Amino acid sequence: MFLLVFYMFIYTFKSANGANLEHRWRLKYKDMSLQRLTALRALMASQPSALAAYIVPTADAHNSEYISPVDARREWLSGFTGSAGTAVVTSANALVWTDGRYYTQFEKEADLTTWTLMKQSLPETPSMEKWLASNLLAGSIVGVDPKTMTREEWTPLQMALTKAKMQLVAVDKNLVDQARVQLNEPPPERPHNVIMHLPLQYTGKTAGQKITELREAMAEKKSSALVVTALDEIAYTLNLRGSDIDYNPVFFSYLLITPTSVVLFWHLGQIPEGVAASLRDEGVEIEGKPYDEIVPTLRRFARELSENGDGEHSIWLSGEASEAIHRAASGEGYLKKPLNLVSEVSPVALAKLIKNDVELEGFRQCHIRDGIAVVRFFRWLHSQVDAGNNITEIQAADKLLEFRKDEKDFMGPSFETIPGAGENGAIIHYSPSRDGPQRDIRSKDMFLLDSGGQYKDGTTDITRTRHMGQPERLQQDSFTRVLKGQIAVGSALYPKGVKGNVLDSLARKALWDVGLDYAHGTGHGVGHFLNVHEGPAGVSWRPYPHDPGLKPGQILSNEPGYYKVGEYGIRHEDLVETIAVTKDTKHHRAAGLLGDYDGRGVLGFNTITLVPHHKMCISEELLTDFELNYLNAYHERVFQTLGPILMERRLREDYVWLEKECSPIMRA
Amino acid sequence: MFLLVFYMFIYTFKSANGANLEHRWRLKYKDMSLQRLTALRALMASQPSALAAYIVPTADAHNSEYISPVDARREWLSGFTGSAGTAVVTSANALVWTDGRYYTQFEKEADLTTWTLMKQSLPETPSMEKWLASNLLAGSIVGVDPKTMTREEWTPLQMALTKAKMQLVAVDKNLVDQARVQLNEPPPERPHNVIMHLPLQYTGKTAGQKITELREAMAEKKSSALVVTALDEIAYTLNLRGSDIDYNPVFFSYLLITPTSVVLFWHLGQIPEGVAASLRDEGVEIEGKPYDEIVPTLRRFARELSENGDGEHSIWLSGEASEAIHRAASGEGYLKKPLNLVSEVSPVALAKLIKNDVELEGFRQCHIRDGIAVVRFFRWLHSQVDAGNNITEIQAADKLLEFRKDEKDFMGPSFETIPGAGENGAIIHYSPSRDGPQRDIRSKDMFLLDSGGQYKDGTTDITRTRHMGQPERLQQDSFTRVLKGQIAVGSALYPKGVKGNVLDSLARKALWDVGLDYAHGTGHGVGHFLNVHEGPAGVSWRPYPHDPGLKPGQILSNEPGYYKVGEYGIRHEDLVETIAVTKDTKHHRAAGLLGDYDGRGVLGFNTITLVPHHKMCISEELLTDFELNYLNAYHERVFQTLGPILMERRLREDYVWLEKECSPIMRA
Repeated sequence: MFLLVFYMFIYTFKSANGANLEHRWRLKYKDMSLQRLTALRALMASQPSALAAYIVPTADAHNSEYISPVDARREWLSGFTGSAGTAVVTSANALVWTDGRYYTQFEKEADLTTWTLMKQSLPETPSMEKWLASNLLAGSIVGVDPKTMTREEWTPLQMALTKAKMQLVAVDKNLVDQARVQLNEPPPERPHNVIMHLPLQYTGKTAGQKITELREAMAEKKSSALVVTALDEIAYTLNLRGSDIDYNPVFFSYLLITPTSVVLFWHLGQIPEGVAASLRDEGVEIEGKPYDEIVPTLRRFARELSENGDGEHSIWLSGEASEAIHRAASGEGYLKKPLNLVSEVSPVALAKLIKNDVELEGFRQCHIRDGIAVVRFFRWLHSQVDAGNNITEIQAADKLLEFRKDEKDFMGPSFETIPGAGENGAIIHYSPSRDGPQRDIRSKDMFLLDSGGQYKDGTTDITRTRHMGQPERLQQDSFTRVLKGQIAVGSALYPKGVKGNVLDSLARKALWDVGLDYAHGTGHGVGHFLNVHEGPAGVSWRPYPHDPGLKPGQILSNEPGYYKVGEYGIRHEDLVETIAVTKDTKHHRAAGLLGDYDGRGVLGFNTITLVPHHKMCISEELLTDFELNYLNAYHERVFQTLGPILMERRLREDYVWLEKECSPIMRA
Repeated sequence: MFLLVFYMFIYTFKSANGANLEHRWRLKYKDMSLQRLTALRALMASQPSALAAYIVPTADAHNSEYISPVDARREWLSGFTGSAGTAVVTSANALVWTDGRYYTQFEKEADLTTWTLMKQSLPETPSMEKWLASNLLAGSIVGVDPKTMTREEWTPLQMALTKAKMQLVAVDKNLVDQARVQLNEPPPERPHNVIMHLPLQYTGKTAGQKITELREAMAEKKSSALVVTALDEIAYTLNLRGSDIDYNPVFFSYLLITPTSVVLFWHLGQIPEGVAASLRDEGVEIEGKPYDEIVPTLRRFARELSENGDGEHSIWLSGEASEAIHRAASGEGYLKKPLNLVSEVSPVALAKLIKNDVELEGFRQCHIRDGIAVVRFFRWLHSQVDAGNNITEIQAADKLLEFRKDEKDFMGPSFETIPGAGENGAIIHYSPSRDGPQRDIRSKDMFLLDSGGQYKDGTTDITRTRHMGQPERLQQDSFTRVLKGQIAVGSALYPKGVKGNVLDSLARKALWDVGLDYAHGTGHGVGHFLNVHEGPAGVSWRPYPHDPGLKPGQILSNEPGYYKVGEYGIRHEDLVETIAVTKDTKHHRAAGLLGDYDGRGVLGFNTITLVPHHKMCISEELLTDFELNYLNAYHERVFQTLGPILMERRLREDYVWLEKECSPIMRA
């Protein structure tokens, strides 16, 4: 119970006060921009070999999608707070490459007298590699902190620079951190919040069993050690959860697994006895070492392997582990004969991708509870707007959090709620500020709400779009086309083993037919009480190079959208689980099966999100009979599942509202 | 005119007698298998450093899809004649990796006491790299003729072997060729058939203009030379056509373009005066050199560039050029400081991909004539089968060729006709043998006919499936689902610049819905009076890494299918051109456009193939209203276009038949 409270406290604090502090800090920022750049440039010039350019990626040392303030180096330097972007500083230039989601934000946040925006979505914008190759002199040295770049990114950059007769060098001490210290704005301390153990009733597999399976994979690869660097992979392997990064229940650490030991590099190395005892119960004797010891430990390990190994065994790590970790594990730069590494998709990522029966049942269960919260919220919101009360986007998000807190095993939001009223719905990564004027949700608004919860038994991520009054004809048309796309994916059958990519166009077809589209992917993997965005699979036109092909037991989002800039946004997002389908499966297409793709096996989806779509926004004449039946059946399932719970809790008004929302659509 | 006759002669000869000779040769083969292997192994052992393995790929020195007998080394060695596969010979093993299309054929053709089939479509089959790495001793040397492997294939193989502590070495003199000489079965001479000039009225752009544009691209890349190695790219650039490879109107050569010269490496180097004069008229002063001079010439060029160049300029070639050409052009192995190369997708491939207005109009025109031939053929075939006459698959193919020969500018088939009756229709790369018992096309057969023609103004590739009597219910169901897939692609709108891959699932959806699929891609590019399979774009679930994104002016096939092994095959194949679509375009979806994908631009297809689908095989209740209207409109267009020509030629019976075939389908 303590952990639950603690966990929620962090999130609440963040949403209530974090944004305020941040905003004041931003106002101050522009003055300091040149001062920070100047400090960095002085450090670049004072390196053993002066750097012509220094690269500041967004990433932390674990390639996390969301980062902690201690790692927000690009943000400190450039003022730009977007979640994606890479800064490059030379003596004459300071540039940030980022994508179309962030152009406006960049221009608001960065000091444009010193910083240049490189719009990487435009074909005419040179890539960072090309820009460096054509703007620096041959012989130039480009520096980067090897902890902040994965090997998969490092290698092609290095090749491009070598081709341009330049050199990419690893600068071990981060220059931005040094500049912060020099300017008396040192980075905050790296968090090392309390770690909780997630019991077997939620995880379905002991840490001991997971490690046994990893060791079997290691033996097959002739690996003497597996280095796990991604924070969610460490949490998954050990059945532990933390709170070091907002929304992501992870803790800063590295994990080293050998055939005989399991070493966790965390904080100062003292693993709390409660955690160690829980792991012991799960068959794992954990050894603690300080977080910063990972590199020297790997170096010792590599040296030992190089001197006393059989020449066949090697160290296994993910290609998404940092260049720094790769160098330490290979001996590059300090061993005469560097070791070969197994550097490929992590076996933990592949194991985590396929949820076990307990995890899947947890996902289904927490989606029932989450559905209750979201249904209660929408009933409340409509009643407020209908009554003429002014509800701001922020108030809506806060109210939604209250409803979620009523639900068992709720641990906090799984990402920052996106409550986009009207034109704000068209901003894909919208989050309203708590400062300054607030946007009310008005009766003439389309309202897009993307939110999710972390529960001990799973993670939710749901978007529903509702009109607060009477939608226009064109809004209904787009709303229905987005829904047709979602149904096309949700009801699709496809051969086992195809990559998620092949489903993307199905979601877009109804929009493409009339010249509309959306500028994001259709689906992402979701962790089990872990990161809401989880690799290595996804549904997009962009390749997911490490997607091993779809198998039963995956959780994906299904979220087509349409955004009319300046007016409104529409997105329908469900989570779905991949299931094997035969004639006997409860699936809309099971009865029609004529084959199993020549033995490959048939997969489909089971939609686990349970919240109705806004019927008033649907043009039923755009729906085929199949789609209409599918939707009516979905709504019936929502009502049959949530209705009794609402009734049991004596939430009479919510029950009545849901019943109406879930009644079948009839053809006119 | 001479060229036309000459060209047809070759094809006719091949179809009439080639197969006979080939068959007798095959019967003899199995005895000689071990003898050939033994000769090769002796040569492997006698290399300066003995080879532990020798790799014999299918490819010729130009990475051609179809190869000439002189290059059929893997076939000579293994007996296996399939179009894809790689042989590996060690002292103890002889293996061929090939895909699922060829398993049965391999087992028929190869001597299974000496050869092992490696089924590369099965996940449990190790890749060639993996097999070598785990079956040879560390320190082993693996040899391959660097002319028969592209650099794109060489580099990863080399990396894999290096990792396994083995070495990949370039064996310049082909060992299979040497073995053939030793065994008194020398390879035939490399063909150097007559070259024809294709006038501007067909090509729409002079060779001079094409070379000017290539030189502009070279200047941008700072390239002192462009080496064109793909035979169709050379033919395209120079507006010349040949007949050195069956069905592909190309000639064995290399082309070297510098800012001041155009050198064609052909035969003994003497360019026929007629050809040189035509090129002079198109603004190109061509210089001839012997075919075999390409490597020494590139070596001289590279040395010159290395010694006297500015250090910035380099040689440009395609990543699909052979390792041998890459080495010659870089100086690797003979210059102290090898040159950097520009090794990426060829600018000729990208230029050729977008057909100009004259080429596009030629494509449309030759499809009208080709449609006449195919319609006449099907009318004839039905009348024969209905009359109870025995028509074999071979006779059908020959008759089709006769009809095509009636058409203006016909130059020969664009590939070997696939006339699959009944169960043979399910064999995707079926070609009936002229020896032994022949398969009649019977009234109870589904009949799949995939064929195409080379015309001076374009290339055709069409598949139609017809039932010779009364189709069964399940056949109609699958036929209609394949048609729904073809209509889904044919009528699709999509954003300019997306890769062809994103369209693949649209073609499969109606089949996937019931557990059916097809084991080939949905579409390939088509050359203009050039190779019927043309890169670098395509429509498939497999990535086309060099696809630059769809633009107006491409020609693609649209060919979903369904194959019931042992019973029948269904494929509907059209060629389509990519077109820009606005509200005013003649396109089924133009009127409904609500946007242009936020400025990216809307693309769609114009189907240029003009032959009706067999209405008797269509279950109209499976078609949506849109699909039914689309199909009826297509049939009306076919009749409106072909009908008057049949009438004008007084082909009354064909006219009447076509009118009936094209009459609209009405809902019951």
